[in-house]
Parts: sequence; structure tokens; C-alpha cells
Amino acid sequence: MRFLPKLERKFRRWKKLKKSPLFRKLDILCESARKRTFQQTPDADYVKRLQTEYGEKGGKELSYKRREQFMYNGSFHEAVGSILLTAQWFAMMPVRGVTAKHPSSLSFSWRNVRTCCCLLFIMSMLINLSLTIYKVLNGSITFNNVRPLIFKSCICLVCGTALNLARKWPELMMHWYEIEQDLPQYRTQREKQRMAHSIKMVMFVGMMLSFAEHLLSMISAINYASYCNKTDDPIRNFFLLTNDEIFYVFDYSTPLALWGKLQNVYSTFIWNYMDILVMIVSIGLASKFRQLNDNLLKFKGMHMAPSYWSERRVQYRNICTLCSNMDNAIALITMVSFSNNLYFICVQLLRSLNTMPSVAHTVYFYFSLIYLIGRTLAVSLYAASVHDESRRSLRYLRCVPKDSWCPEVKRFAEEISSDMVALSGMKFFHLTRKLVLSVAGTIVTYELVLIQFHEDQDLWDCDQSSYS
Amino acid sequence: MRFLPKLERKFRRWKKLKKSPLFRKLDILCESARKRTFQQTPDADYVKRLQTEYGEKGGKELSYKRREQFMYNGSFHEAVGSILLTAQWFAMMPVRGVTAKHPSSLSFSWRNVRTCCCLLFIMSMLINLSLTIYKVLNGSITFNNVRPLIFKSCICLVCGTALNLARKWPELMMHWYEIEQDLPQYRTQREKQRMAHSIKMVMFVGMMLSFAEHLLSMISAINYASYCNKTDDPIRNFFLLTNDEIFYVFDYSTPLALWGKLQNVYSTFIWNYMDILVMIVSIGLASKFRQLNDNLLKFKGMHMAPSYWSERRVQYRNICTLCSNMDNAIALITMVSFSNNLYFICVQLLRSLNTMPSVAHTVYFYFSLIYLIGRTLAVSLYAASVHDESRRSLRYLRCVPKDSWCPEVKRFAEEISSDMVALSGMKFFHLTRKLVLSVAGTIVTYELVLIQFHEDQDLWDCDQSSYS
Amino acid sequence: MRFLPKLERKFRRWKKLKKSPLFRKLDILCESARKRTFQQTPDADYVKRLQTEYGEKGGKELSYKRREQFMYNGSFHEAVGSILLTAQWFAMMPVRGVTAKHPSSLSFSWRNVRTCCCLLFIMSMLINLSLTIYKVLNGSITFNNVRPLIFKSCICLVCGTALNLARKWPELMMHWYEIEQDLPQYRTQREKQRMAHSIKMVMFVGMMLSFAEHLLSMISAINYASYCNKTDDPIRNFFLLTNDEIFYVFDYSTPLALWGKLQNVYSTFIWNYMDILVMIVSIGLASKFRQLNDNLLKFKGMHMAPSYWSERRVQYRNICTLCSNMDNAIALITMVSFSNNLYFICVQLLRSLNTMPSVAHTVYFYFSLIYLIGRTLAVSLYAASVHDESRRSLRYLRCVPKDSWCPEVKRFAEEISSDMVALSGMKFFHLTRKLVLSVAGTIVTYELVLIQFHEDQDLWDCDQSSYS
Amino acid sequence: MRFLPKLERKFRRWKKLKKSPLFRKLDILCESARKRTFQQTPDADYVKRLQTEYGEKGGKELSYKRREQFMYNGSFHEAVGSILLTAQWFAMMPVRGVTAKHPSSLSFSWRNVRTCCCLLFIMSMLINLSLTIYKVLNGSITFNNVRPLIFKSCICLVCGTALNLARKWPELMMHWYEIEQDLPQYRTQREKQRMAHSIKMVMFVGMMLSFAEHLLSMISAINYASYCNKTDDPIRNFFLLTNDEIFYVFDYSTPLALWGKLQNVYSTFIWNYMDILVMIVSIGLASKFRQLNDNLLKFKGMHMAPSYWSERRVQYRNICTLCSNMDNAIALITMVSFSNNLYFICVQLLRSLNTMPSVAHTVYFYFSLIYLIGRTLAVSLYAASVHDESRRSLRYLRCVPKDSWCPEVKRFAEEISSDMVALSGMKFFHLTRKLVLSVAGTIVTYELVLIQFHEDQDLWDCDQSSYS
Repeated sequence: MRFLPKLERKFRRWKKLKKSPLFRKLDILCESARKRTFQQTPDADYVKRLQTEYGEKGGKELSYKRREQFMYNGSFHEAVGSILLTAQWFAMMPVRGVTAKHPSSLSFSWRNVRTCCCLLFIMSMLINLSLTIYKVLNGSITFNNVRPLIFKSCICLVCGTALNLARKWPELMMHWYEIEQDLPQYRTQREKQRMAHSIKMVMFVGMMLSFAEHLLSMISAINYASYCNKTDDPIRNFFLLTNDEIFYVFDYSTPLALWGKLQNVYSTFIWNYMDILVMIVSIGLASKFRQLNDNLLKFKGMHMAPSYWSERRVQYRNICTLCSNMDNAIALITMVSFSNNLYFICVQLLRSLNTMPSVAHTVYFYFSLIYLIGRTLAVSLYAASVHDESRRSLRYLRCVPKDSWCPEVKRFAEEISSDMVALSGMKFFHLTRKLVLSVAGTIVTYELVLIQFHEDQDLWDCDQSSYS
Repeated sequence: MRFLPKLERKFRRWKKLKKSPLFRKLDILCESARKRTFQQTPDADYVKRLQTEYGEKGGKELSYKRREQFMYNGSFHEAVGSILLTAQWFAMMPVRGVTAKHPSSLSFSWRNVRTCCCLLFIMSMLINLSLTIYKVLNGSITFNNVRPLIFKSCICLVCGTALNLARKWPELMMHWYEIEQDLPQYRTQREKQRMAHSIKMVMFVGMMLSFAEHLLSMISAINYASYCNKTDDPIRNFFLLTNDEIFYVFDYSTPLALWGKLQNVYSTFIWNYMDILVMIVSIGLASKFRQLNDNLLKFKGMHMAPSYWSERRVQYRNICTLCSNMDNAIALITMVSFSNNLYFICVQLLRSLNTMPSVAHTVYFYFSLIYLIGRTLAVSLYAASVHDESRRSLRYLRCVPKDSWCPEVKRFAEEISSDMVALSGMKFFHLTRKLVLSVAGTIVTYELVLIQFHEDQDLWDCDQSSYS
Repeated sequence: MRFLPKLERKFRRWKKLKKSPLFRKLDILCESARKRTFQQTPDADYVKRLQTEYGEKGGKELSYKRREQFMYNGSFHEAVGSILLTAQWFAMMPVRGVTAKHPSSLSFSWRNVRTCCCLLFIMSMLINLSLTIYKVLNGSITFNNVRPLIFKSCICLVCGTALNLARKWPELMMHWYEIEQDLPQYRTQREKQRMAHSIKMVMFVGMMLSFAEHLLSMISAINYASYCNKTDDPIRNFFLLTNDEIFYVFDYSTPLALWGKLQNVYSTFIWNYMDILVMIVSIGLASKFRQLNDNLLKFKGMHMAPSYWSERRVQYRNICTLCSNMDNAIALITMVSFSNNLYFICVQLLRSLNTMPSVAHTVYFYFSLIYLIGRTLAVSLYAASVHDESRRSLRYLRCVPKDSWCPEVKRFAEEISSDMVALSGMKFFHLTRKLVLSVAGTIVTYELVLIQFHEDQDLWDCDQSSYS
Repeated sequence: MRFLPKLERKFRRWKKLKKSPLFRKLDILCESARKRTFQQTPDADYVKRLQTEYGEKGGKELSYKRREQFMYNGSFHEAVGSILLTAQWFAMMPVRGVTAKHPSSLSFSWRNVRTCCCLLFIMSMLINLSLTIYKVLNGSITFNNVRPLIFKSCICLVCGTALNLARKWPELMMHWYEIEQDLPQYRTQREKQRMAHSIKMVMFVGMMLSFAEHLLSMISAINYASYCNKTDDPIRNFFLLTNDEIFYVFDYSTPLALWGKLQNVYSTFIWNYMDILVMIVSIGLASKFRQLNDNLLKFKGMHMAPSYWSERRVQYRNICTLCSNMDNAIALITMVSFSNNLYFICVQLLRSLNTMPSVAHTVYFYFSLIYLIGRTLAVSLYAASVHDESRRSLRYLRCVPKDSWCPEVKRFAEEISSDMVALSGMKFFHLTRKLVLSVAGTIVTYELVLIQFHEDQDLWDCDQSSYS
């Protein structure tokens, strides 16, 4: 059972039930228009039916402008619009036209103000990274102490990759758009907004949890800072603690502190966003495969013409190409996301052996650990769903009756069963459900070995800068 | 060699030899009736032969009522009836109509008394779990001490899942029934009761061993309690020891002690039953594949019409669908069963390094360890037999002579060789024979690492509550 | 590169060059006879050629009796005759008629004197095992101390399995014989005796090395016994040392000592023989696949009739069935052989950290270690060669020209590429070249962990019975 | 993303842009000649076009002699000529005629002066190895101390294998040549010299880095020698340090020191060259697959005659055979290269825990470690590219339109999808991208275990000979 996508689907269903009156009306409108069209065309034979199935131009254009703002066209570009807009507030993916109706409005330019912001942030992040390297190299290098270094390197790497991804984004979205146009279309609004809802839900839940974690981390830091009391100013104490890499080099000053805080907030966002990005792309790809599968399911076990199968095969092939292109585009982000999560889970599990100095610490630590494991699991399962959906087509092909079995179906079935369609970490590993188990096994093994080197750290020792 | 199923098959054969007179008579009756039917139909051509092969309506209905109580129809529903009835005495799987002749009599209702008992037990188990959590959190948390916690969490999880499974059970059994009706039928009683016998034997042996283990555990506890002598009342001592999580919070009282004991007995049953359930479903699925394979074997190397192969292929596909549905239904139970067994084997192997305080302890401990390993092996091998049987069909297809080689055979062979038909642990791993080796390797690796943290516990130290 | 089989092939070639005059004459005789036959049949068309190719009845029967004693028929039964005879001297595989010309002379009987000897030895071995268990349980149980226990259990297990194998042997050899008769025959003596030579060479080298190892072990024991000097009698000292499990219970007596020595010699033989048996069966199976491949190679790239391919496919299928039957028959022996080797390599590598007390010890120890690793590697590589040879056919099918490509070739190619033909350890693992690496990796990992528990043993400490 | 080959491709592109005027002229000349040929043949139908496509005899031979020295024919023999010549200066691969235009000029002879040099070097290396063995056996044997022993054994093994490879080289190159002649030819100079450029770039970069590492090692050794000051002569100190295995046995003398130095230089070259050789062969094979793929890409999605596909399939098969032959030829070198790199990365990572005595040491050590990891990664990725390119053909076959789908395409697609085409380490493992991850995982696991035995070595302790 894929419980994570399932849970989310259930939640969505519940939400839609609440919202439904408007959508139900829209669907009824649309359906009645469609019926009228049918009545006008008395000889609605198979070809016509197929045409109306995938085209639906008649019914849709009747009152297009009136319903435009409520209508979904079910495209990936539309679904990720608001997500990308949010990301742009945090200096990621500076593409213009993300909320436009059509992907042809997308463009990337080095002179755009968003691009400049993004470059500025990368620059500032690199300075912060240098300060961190300086501080780490002046202390002892252990598995635990290099944590801020790895965290910030990952952020820089992801920012750079996201910038590069932004350059390719307009082209990629056009590719999506063309493939989506060709796929068997959904008829109801509910089916069309499914993917968009999943994506928005993932973004929303992810952001809320990451916000909660950041708040808890601040509370815990304030708590610790007030105990240690390096200076009289509690705000100063807080900043001295959370941006120790800056004030290890420079003297305290409010602008620097604010810069540090801003960096922290942005870093936290980006650290979560890289996982969310992988999930969103996975949801998009899986939903395209599902769109095809839903069509196959509708005609499961029926006698279909070879041309039907040939069409589906080409569509399947197109989604595979899309999947491979997206995989190449986000390969580095996936790789960073997985290795980062693996490292942090190992470190945090190891730190769970420490005695926690306060309740605030304990709450923050366990919330953070559970959130981390949950996020990793969510990324793995959503990414694996692309592979699962791509294999599901095979199940329907197995049920093709004897008489309809033709070379085209055979070719389709053989292609599905021999190809490996999945997102991957730079082709070094494929993201399937089996990966989850091997990652878990790896973590347990490393943990069992690492546990031998663990020495309990006295976290109430204020001189020791091992906090955070 | 699959020695476990083999052993059991041998035992069954020996048992049947004893019982045979009655069955032999029934078979003779049935066969003579069949012959008479044949004599009445002089033009028994191929189509007729097939019809009588799979239908056998003539011979069977002659004296149906008379022999009804001794006759097996070979269905899975019939075979698991008494098993589910037993389980219902222990608050598991509250479905009505488990012993009815036809699966359409099955039903689930929330208002049924069995469902209420089940919910009551889950409630009571959750209270017990909370007490255990309270006790564990107040002690030191080690790999060994969380044992009761994990044990009881698993019980709760399995109870909940079994309740959910009970809701789907009537539908699942109807699915089984439809597929069974369509399969090539066995002609003799002996073949028909094969599956039922295997299932009952597994249940019987499992229950006996688990009962023996529980007895030994009680003897060992009594022995220990009498040595420690916390109070003057030996019965009280015993309950104080075995239900320490209750009396850690509450004062001693007989009703509480009895409640605790009841919980213990039920928990022990459920802990064994989850493994037995996986085995039973595996036996059922494997036996359906075997039913198909026996038919393929009968016509191995002969010239058969394409329609024969097409029929077999559809039947094979149906069993695959059934297998996949059952896998989804019991996925969580399989997962819990395997991870639970893995954890307990690791813990018990580690504890085997302790010096045992008494002979009763030693006997109990080694019996329990061997039983645990044996049970895990049995679950793995029975579950793997589904995959093995599903692959065996391919062997017969390889022997199809050149002239009978047709697209249908080709399609059949390709589908078997490219599909993965097996039970799985929530799709994270497939239950095949290769899994056994990798599980064994994992246990050895973890054990070698864990052994470093082992410190011998003085089990005669009565203050230390590390008993059980 | 498969260096072990290669080395042996080179050695064989060199040997044959020496021996060749006789064989060359035989081949010339045979060839000239064949030519005469051809001259008598002027219209030697394709069908005739094929017939003479595989039949060769004309040429062979001309002077059959005269050359009989030098002629090989290339059957497996003939090749293993002397090997089994040797094994029977050591109470293994009590089958009658192993050196007969035809496998139909083989028979097994419980009342045969060889079977009785075998049963007697198993009985005696079980007594010895009990004594060993008694001694081990009275000492401390460590990874190293259970060595004699594991050694003797394996011997008992293998003896029992070999007895069971002996019962099935006549039937298995008839199966081999039938399949061999059907295969494309070799024409020259040199090709026919290839397999027999390989098998004899493996037996010879294996026995020589094992004899050398036993001698070295005796020298080392004598050396040690003379140093420790428990009694005045050096022979007595030696026996007290090497059969410590007997004299731990009983007082010293010469008959007991001789019994112990006999057990030692037999155990050593059987310990080596189980590996050799696996190698011999592997060589046999691989050579049957090679026989088929050599024929495919001869017609590689040529235009062949579909009937040719159909015939080859059936032959290939037959060898696969044979391979699967042999695998089932020796499954337990393979399993014991591999796990035994794995355990002993781990133990010996660990013991290599001890400081050796004398030169005799050092020489014995390193010879034994290298022999053990070499034998394990040899078993693995010979067993893997079955899989390699079975896959090699595919290479020739890939070169079938476009015009000869027919459904039969397609079916043949698909069957080879989708089936897994290899010996296995009770189906838990397949014996392929990839296994070697994973076994090596496992050994390294276990060794790295085990090394932490190692404490140097003072082997000159005569009180400590940790010798051997 | 395959970043290493990509990086190098980018660099090449940049370089070519600089060089292009000459090549552009050549291409223009060639193209205009081709056009003229076309104009003379007015009925340029499909067959003609194909002929000129792959033959291009008309245009090329016009001014062959004039442009000969600048022209590439794109053959592997031509591309590796200068590489082999360089290797011959370091006593590797003594084949005559490596820089000749045609591979038929290649020859190997035992009496050639290069062969004698090579044998002489092997002899001298064996003496050096014996001295090293003597020194190592007289010290304590640890994971770290056997380093020089393993280093020199590998060198000897590789030298011997390279000598053996040299014997087969002429034949192998003829095989390459024949296959290359048959492949679809490139038309422009730029495409033809692509492979040669990659190969030369890898050799150049590899040699430069290895030279830099050797220089740094010398600086670090001089630094250390001057600190320790065993004698007054700094040069003597240096040689005493770097050739300690020689002067452990013999007294210091300048000829011996020079001999040792020469050995060092040669060893370093060969140690790098074995990795470079694997990379070069990989580039060659991958580029042949790419040549075929580029042709498939050109006609992707078009309607092609069955004869086109049949031709491509045979060409693909030929490259596979070539790949398998090359794999057999360099199997031992690949195996040594990988195990050697694995061992040295483990040792160096472990040594990174030592405190470095000086800046020179630190720089040398980290440069050497990064170079080692980079080289291993490069070998793995280049070798994996053979597999990747071989699979890429499948992508184009998936896009064959419905009407052109014929048995030949089907056969081609099935062969690609079911065969495993890759370089391998003696067939024990295949060199694919997945291997990289499992090697990395193995290193981390071993490192985590080995780290427990690490004790910091005082490298300023001059008595201790643990330097180097």
C-alpha cells in the first residue's frame, strides 16, 4: 500500500466534498453542453465519440470566458504556477510568466530582477559558506561538526542547479504542454484539478511543517541563549548563538545579525524546497501516466482497434521521454536531496542518544527528527509512484482479449515490461519502492557502527559551541 | 528443496493413508457415477470430455445430499472456515458466516457482537500499551528494553489491520470463489482436500507449539517468582512479575491480574496468528497455482488447441489478480510479521549470550528461540512457494511441441517470464527464496555489530526488572 | 577469464600431446572407416550427412570389440565410474555397478555390503559427534571453539545426503544416458574423453592436495605433542591431542585411538569429497552444454532448416531439465559445501592473526588456508561454468542470418535469455560468477567485524585445549 | 548526467573552435567535391545516396595525398597510436607499428628490442618486489604496512598482462579495423577526430596530474628527509627515504639509488597507465556505439526499409563481439585497476585521520587523495559509458513508426534489451553506473569499521619507517 499518496488523496476527497457545489455546477453546465452537441450530431459513430472524448471543443468554448477563472485545464504548468511564484520569493527558479495561462509566456533572462536577486543570494550564501568553512577548519573535524558545512554547501549547490533549471524551464514546460495536449483528456473538473490539488497540498503541508520546525528551533535557541547569557541583551545572545559562524570573525552588529537571520530563513526554505520540488515533479509525471492508465482502464478487456493501441503506445513513449528529460533536468537536485537526507538522518539519530538539556530542546529535536524521516519517506514514495504508475499500464494490457491481440499490443507490452521508467539520482540509482528498504538498511548499518564512537555531549556547557 | 512444505506433505500423506477407506469409497462412488454418465453418452468427443472434466455435474449431483457432510469442494473459503472461527475466539477477524458452505453468506457488520468484542479488546490493548509506554519511558531505553513496547504495538497494529481485513473479507472470498469455479477442477476427494489439510495442519502445529511455548514461559516465570519472593503469595508474585507494566502504576488486585493474564494469552495467540495468517493465504494462493499447473502437467508435451492455451492464460491471469488483491489486503500484516520476527530474532540471539539462571529458563529460552527461527523460516518458505508455483507453469510451456506453438502460448510464456508474481511486504520487498538468504545475512551482520554492546545481565537480580 | 578451467584445459592439452599416438591411430581408423562408408554412398546429401554426423554407426561398429578398452563413449556415467569407486572406499555413495559400461547395470540395495559399511560409518560418526558435543558444551562456546562441532555435523549431514543420493543415482544416470544419446555426438576420441579427463584431473589434484594437507596436519600435531609431552609415549601423546574429544570421556586405549584416527582420515576425505562432487557434477553439466554449443558453433552464421533449430532447442531443454534434476539431487550437499567453506575461511582468517608457535605450524596453517580458499574458488568457478555455458548458446543464435530467422530460432533465443539455468544452493542462491564477489564481500565484512573480538591465543599453552 | 565525459566534451568543443579554420577548409573541400560528384550523377536515388553516405570514395580520393597528414580516418588504431608509443617508453605494450596508418603493420616479436626492455623491466621489478617482501615480512603486518607490497605486486601483474595483451594486440586491432570499415561513416573531419581527441585528452590530463602528484611526493619527501637528517648528504637522505626497501638490505650506493628512482618513476607511470588504458578502451568502444547511434538518430522516426535495420543489427552485433573480445583481453587489468583503487582509497582515507607533519605533506596528501578518487570515478564513468551507449540504441528503436515495424526491428530491439553489453572485471562484476554507488557504499562501510583500529601515527618520528 502506498499510504502517503493515499492519505493525501483521502484528505483531498474530503476537501473536495466541501467545495463541490461550484464544481458540480460547472460540470453539469459542461456536460449539458456536451449532450446538446451530441443531439445535434445524430450519427455519433465511434470516430466522432473519440473526437469528442479528446477534443470536447464544442462544449467547452460555449461560455469559456465566463468560467475561465474557475476552470482548470489540468496542465502541469498551471499546477506549479503558484508553487514557483512562492519559490521566487525565496530567490529560487527566476523564470518570468509562471502564472500565465500558456507555457509559451515563460521566459528566462539574465537581466531580469528575479535573476539578479537570485545571483545576489547565491553570492551572499557563498560568503556565509566561507565563514562557516573558516570556523569548521579552526575546530576539530568530526562527523557531527561538519554538519553546518554540509548544510550550506548543499544549499549553494541546489541554488546553482535551480538557476540552471530555470534556464531550461520554458523549454521543458513547452515539452510538457505538447505531450499533455496529445493525451486522452479528462472530462470533469474534478479529475482535471486532481494533480494541481495534490501539488498544492504537498507544498502547503511541507511549508507548514518546515515553518513549525523553524519556530521550534527559534524557541529552543532563545531558551538556550537566555540560559547561557553571554551578554545582557537577549536578542544579541540569540543572534550570537544562531549565527556563530559570522560573529566568530566579525564583531556583533545589528545589520550583520539581520543578514544572518535572513540567510537562515532562506536556507531553511530552500532546504525543504529541494525535497518538495522532487515530489512535485514526481506527482506531475505520475499523474500523466495515470491519465493514460485511466483511459486504458476504461477500455480494459474490450475489443479495440489496433490504431487505438498504436496511439496509446506513442503517448506512453512520449511520457517516457518527458520523464527522462525531467530526470536529467533535476538529477543533481535529486542526488543532493537524497544524500543530504541520508546524512542528516544518520547525524540526528546519533544525536538522539544525547541527554536533552530542556523540554524545548526535546520537543524541537524529536519534532525535527520525525519531520526529517517523514519528509525523506514522502520524497521516496512520491518518486517511486512514477515507476509504479508506469508499470500499471501493463496490467491492463494483460487483459486484452485474444481476438484483439495484435502486433501493436505486443510491442506496447514488451516495451513496458523491458524498460525501466523512473526518476533516478544521476542514473546511479533508480527511485523505486525497493530503494526505500535498501536506504533504511544502510541507515541502520551505519548507525550501528557509528554508535560506537558516540560520546555524550554536555549541551549545557556554554563554552562549547556544539549547539545547533 | 522446499523441505518445510515437503515434510508437511509427507505427514499429510501418512495421515490420509490411515483415513482413506471412507474417501476411497466416496471416490469409487463418484467415479462409477461418472462412468455411467459416459456410457449414456456414446459420442463423447473432445468437447464433451473437457466439459465433464471441468464440470462433472452429472456424477456429482446424483447423491449430493447424502455425501455432503464428507465432501470437500476444494475452495479456500471452506478450508479457512475453522481457522477463522478459532481466530474469532481470540477477537480477530470478526466476520459472520465463516463456516457457511458458500462465501455469499459472509458478512461484516459493526454492530455484530464479534466486532464489539474485537473493538473492546483493541481498546483494552491500547490501555495496556499506554501503561507499557509509561513504564519504558521511566526506565533506560535500550535495544532490549523496548521489547515489550514493540511487541504490544505490533499486536495493536495487527488487530486494527485484521479488523480492516474483516471488512473486505466477504468481497475477497467472493473473488476467490469466482476464480476457483473457473479453474480446472480436481476429480478425486484426495486432491480436493489437499489444501484444506495443509492449512489445518499449519494451524494445528503452530497453535500447539505456541501453546507449549506459553506453558514453558509460565513455568519459567513461576520458577523465577518463587525465587524472588516479593510477597508471601506465590500467585501474586507470579502476576507481579508477568504484568509488571500494570502493577508499576496500580496496586495489586486480582481483577487487574486476571485482566493482565487474559491480555497475555490473547497477545500470544495474535502474535502467532499473524504469521499463521500469512502462511495460510500463501498456501491458498500456491495451491490455486498448483491446480492450474497440475492441469498443464497432465497435457504436457501434447498437441493442444490454441483455445486450450487461451483458457489457461486467462485462468493464470485471474490467479495473478487474486494474488495481487490478497497481497494488498494483508500487506501491512506481512510487513509487521517480518519486521517483528527480524527484531525478535536479533534480540533473542543477543540474549542467548546471557548466562541462564535456571534449567527452566534455559529450556524455555532455547525452545522459544528455535520456535521463533523455525516460524520465521516457515513463513518465508510458504510465502516463497507462491512465487515458485507461479513460475512452474513456464516449465510446461517450454515443452509445448513445435506444431502446437501458437501466439497464445507465446503470449502466455512471455507474460509468466516477465511478470513478478509473489506476495510482498507492502511492495518494499518480494517474498521469494532469495529473500531468506538476505534476511539471514542481515541478521548475522546486525548481530555481529550488536554483540559489541552486550553486557551480561544478572538475571537473578530481583530488583532489576529486566526479566521477561 | 575463467582461469581455473582454463589452466586445467591447458594442462590437459599438454598431457594429450604426450599420449596422442594411440588416440591419433584410433581416430585415423575411425575416420578412414567413415570415409569408406561415404564412398559407398555416392549421393551423400544433407540428410545423410546429418545422419552420419550424429549416428556414425557404420564406422564405429567395424572393429568395436578390438578397440573397446581404449574407446570412450563420452558419457558422464563412464567418466565418474572410477571417482565413485574411490568414494566407495570411504563409505560414500554405495551404488553397485559404477564401473559398468552401461548405466542400466547400476543398482542400489539396502542389503548390499557397501550400504552396510556406509551405515556403519554414519553410526560411528554420530557417536563421535556426540562426544564432540559433550566436550564443546563443557567448555566455553565461542566462534572458534564450535569448529569441530560444525565440522563433524557437516560430515554426518553429507554422509546421510550422499546415501540418499545413492538411492536416486541409478535413475539419474539413466536420465543422463538418454539425454546424452540424443545430443549431437563428437567424432574424435579426443573430444569424447575431454570431460572424463577434466573430472579425473579434478579428483586427482583435489585428493593429492587434501592428502598433503592431512600429512602436514599430522606433522604439525606430532611436533606439538612432542613439545607438550603429556605422557612418555609419543604415539599416545599424538592420539591424545588429535582425538581429544574421545579421551575427554574415555581413558586412553589403542583401539579407541585407532578408531579415532580412522574417523579423522575418513572425515578429511569426505570433507574434500563434497566439494569435489559439486565440481564433478558441474563439469558434467557444463560439458553437455558445451557439446551442444560446439555443434551450434560449427553451423554458426549458416543457413539452417527450422528443423535443425527445433532439434537443438529440444536438446537444450533436455539438458536444462537434467540440470534442474541434478540440482535438486545435490542441493543439500551444495548448501553444506558453501556454508561450510564460508565458515572455515572466516575462522581460519581470524586465526591467521595468532602468532604461530613453530615453523611446522606456520607451513601447515598457510598451506591449509590457501588450499581452503583455492578449493572454494574452484567450486564456485566450476559451478558458475554451468551457467556460463548455458548462456553461450545465445551468442550463436544472435548470429543467425536474417533469412534463416524463423519462429523456432526466436523461441529458442527467448527461452535462453529469460531462463536462469544454473546450479543453486537449495534455490536460495544461484551459483554464478557474481556470487563469488558477493561471497568475498561478505567474508571481508564479517572478518572486519570479527577481528574486534580477537584475542591472541597462546598456542604453546599445553593446558588449553584450543589446538586444532 | 555524465559530468566527466561532458566536461571533456565541452573542453574539446572550445578547443576545436580555436583550431577550426583548417578543418573547416578541409570539410568545405570535401563537401564541394562530394557535390560535384552528385552533379555528375543526375539520378541520385536512395541506393546511391546510401553508397555515397558510407563510401564517399569519390570526394575523398580527389586530393588524398595532399591532405593526408591532416586527415583522420576515425579509426581506433590511429587514435591510440601516440598513446601506445608513450607507453612503450615506459616498457609497456611492446608492439611494433603502432603509429602506422594501417593496423596490418602491427606485429609482435619476442626478439624486438622493446620486448626485451619490457622483460628487463619486469625482471628488475621482480627483484624490487622481493626486497619489499623481505622488508615487510621483517616488520609487523598491518593493513597499512602492506601498501608497498600490494603496490608493487600490482605493477608486476599489470606488466605481465600488458605483455600478453601486446601479443594479441595486432589481431585485436585488425578486428577493430574490419568492424570500423563496416560501420556507417562520419562525413566531417570534426566527427572523425572526436574519439582521437577524447583519448588524447584523457592521456594528457592523466599524465599531467600524475606528474604533478609525483613532483609533490618528491617535495614532501625532500622536506621530510631534510628534517630527519640521517646523513649529511641531502640527496642521500632523500634516496634512503624513498627507496628504503633497497637500503634495508644493501648499503647506500649511487647506482642503486638511481635504479630505485627509475623504478619509482616507471611504477608511478604504470600505476596510472593501467587506469588510463581501461578508460581509452572504454572511450573507443563507446564511440563505436555512438557512431551507430548517430546514424540511428539521423533516421529516427522515419520509414526505413527492413534491410536498413538488418544492416544496423549486424553492425551492432559486431560491436558487441568486439566489446566482448576487448573485455576478455583487458579483463585482468580492469580487475587489478579496480581492486587496487578500492584498496588505496580505503588506506588513504584512513591515513587522512593522521595529523600531518608539514604543509608540504598536507598539500601532497590531499592532492593525492582527491586525484585517486577522481581517477577512480573517471575510470568507472568512462567504463560505464560503454553500457550506456549500447543501451541508447533502444531509445531510437522505440520510435520506429508502426508501419516500419518489422521482424528485423523486433529482433534488434529484443537483442538490445535482453543482452548485457558492458566491460567487466573478469565477469565478476559489470562496469555500469550502478557499480559506482555500490563501490562507494562498500568503501564507506569498510572505512567505518576500519576507523576503529586506527591509531594516530607520529609522522615526525624519524626512527619509524612508516613514511610514504
